[in-house]
Amino acid sequence: MFLAKVYVTLKPTVNDPQGLTIKGALHNLGFSQVQEVRAGKFIEIKIDETDLDKARSEVENMCRKLLANTVIENFRFELEQLKPG
Amino acid sequence: MFLAKVYVTLKPTVNDPQGLTIKGALHNLGFSQVQEVRAGKFIEIKIDETDLDKARSEVENMCRKLLANTVIENFRFELEQLKPG
Repeated sequence: MFLAKVYVTLKPTVNDPQGLTIKGALHNLGFSQVQEVRAGKFIEIKIDETDLDKARSEVENMCRKLLANTVIENFRFELEQLKPG
Repeated sequence: MFLAKVYVTLKPTVNDPQGLTIKGALHNLGFSQVQEVRAGKFIEIKIDETDLDKARSEVENMCRKLLANTVIENFRFELEQLKPG
């Protein structure tokens, strides 16, 4: 069993209206030292798989097919082995 | 200058309809080994601050005041010093 932690972020050249909105709200709250905010997704996936390489290739496929829009987004992930039970 | 990487996740007892939808979609795509999916947010914040402790307390405040709903969400973050220029 593996836990995949997937991080999906907008590519640096892509506009991020959500990040701009968060930045504006932080400034309004008095956090004037905030210079840039980028918003992304964090997805945790539990996978019933015993082989690390197989788990890695499956998560890679999940990212390409569903979790990330690779035209505008980058993704990276970490795999962590979970103890059974 | 610091880069804060903030991870906001739903508390384990809170229902996660977005995660369930992603899980269903992954199953439909043939990823039947997926057992659980939890969806969260990943936010990167550049902060114009020189002192690590001050930056840490500011990001903690940002999370409590805006980024996370602490009734239903947990947050954690890492700070990374950025080289000037």
